[in-house]
Amino acid sequence: MLIAKVIGTTVSTIKDETLTGQKLLIVQQADEKGTPFGKPYVAVDTVNAGVGDMVLTAHGSSARQTAITKERPVDAVIMAMIDTLEVDGEVTFQKG
Amino acid sequence: MLIAKVIGTTVSTIKDETLTGQKLLIVQQADEKGTPFGKPYVAVDTVNAGVGDMVLTAHGSSARQTAITKERPVDAVIMAMIDTLEVDGEVTFQKG
Amino acid sequence: MLIAKVIGTTVSTIKDETLTGQKLLIVQQADEKGTPFGKPYVAVDTVNAGVGDMVLTAHGSSARQTAITKERPVDAVIMAMIDTLEVDGEVTFQKG
Amino acid sequence: MLIAKVIGTTVSTIKDETLTGQKLLIVQQADEKGTPFGKPYVAVDTVNAGVGDMVLTAHGSSARQTAITKERPVDAVIMAMIDTLEVDGEVTFQKG
Amino acid sequence: MLIAKVIGTTVSTIKDETLTGQKLLIVQQADEKGTPFGKPYVAVDTVNAGVGDMVLTAHGSSARQTAITKERPVDAVIMAMIDTLEVDGEVTFQKG
Repeated sequence: MLIAKVIGTTVSTIKDETLTGQKLLIVQQADEKGTPFGKPYVAVDTVNAGVGDMVLTAHGSSARQTAITKERPVDAVIMAMIDTLEVDGEVTFQKG
Repeated sequence: MLIAKVIGTTVSTIKDETLTGQKLLIVQQADEKGTPFGKPYVAVDTVNAGVGDMVLTAHGSSARQTAITKERPVDAVIMAMIDTLEVDGEVTFQKG
Repeated sequence: MLIAKVIGTTVSTIKDETLTGQKLLIVQQADEKGTPFGKPYVAVDTVNAGVGDMVLTAHGSSARQTAITKERPVDAVIMAMIDTLEVDGEVTFQKG
Repeated sequence: MLIAKVIGTTVSTIKDETLTGQKLLIVQQADEKGTPFGKPYVAVDTVNAGVGDMVLTAHGSSARQTAITKERPVDAVIMAMIDTLEVDGEVTFQKG
Repeated sequence: MLIAKVIGTTVSTIKDETLTGQKLLIVQQADEKGTPFGKPYVAVDTVNAGVGDMVLTAHGSSARQTAITKERPVDAVIMAMIDTLEVDGEVTFQKG
């Protein structure tokens, strides 16, 4: 899974019909301190995440292993909200 | 999913027979403002997209989870047209 | 799918027994003009492609969705020959 | 598989319900000497690994081929602890 | 598939129980001349390869399509030994 920060939202009227009602959030990969980097990607939310939240995203076929995403054409899912990240015994990120 | 811009079309006479009639579009990954970057790739269209449209593409086995692409040898699908992208409360892309 | 150019061939005597008779070609990713770049990879041919041809390759589990590659340990397949690539209304590649 | 070093831990209260009780570790890819590099990612532990351990991680659908991760939305798993790495006849890493 | 050179071996006592007896080799991607580059990764051997051999590796779910790797948590497999690589009509690599 990738550590990621939710940075935005998408609106899409025309899409695969199985995606109706799915929340597609814009996220950006982040490091252990929660600092985002790189180009954004889009993931389906399954944990009621919002802009600013630090999350984990699962990719590929693993993104379809939730009740919300099963058998749908999505390749990235937010499957966990991050409370704390700790590296080498130090807390590097804590949910505000 | 990746944010992508449709930039062109492909013509292919000789191909896997299950791909007959599929529309293979050339796309380029884009950022939250809709600015394309990087090398192009090819995705099957399932939402009647055209050159200039901003779309989402799903990859890998997830690209085969549509009625059009099921059990076909394709690894990228356009499964949504983007109307609006919003980052940190600001609209960064709006369909023209 | 990736746009790719067929640049060579491989010979392999010792291999997974399900690969007997498969044609493993060396390909290199290419841009919309057909200009190759990057390191080569190897893909199974299913469209009778030859050195110099511009093709599309599908990857991952999607590479196993052809009659030739089904249930075999291959992760890249040539599933289409490219006749024409057109970007923004201009023909950028045409089969010679 | 990737050679990786376990560098930290995550705490996540809100997550996909099938992930309850799973240990999500922060890891970083490493070279044959055990030197980590690149951005961290998160993998499910199945071998009782701890911070400082050198491990192997499997990715994608392969990450779901363990009793612990089966049918769960995870795309990286720690499936082996590394005792020794040997390159060209020289031991390059040995568990302390 | 990737062209790769076998550069070393791993020893792992604690691992997923389905991996008992599997040979996990350290490999490095190589170009058409057999020159290795980039960081090493680990692949399951299915063709009795040894250090110094040039091989092909298949990745992702395709790595599980052999009798040895089926339903196991491995994402890279050596499924062929390379005898010869030929690019543009020139032999670029020949097994010694």
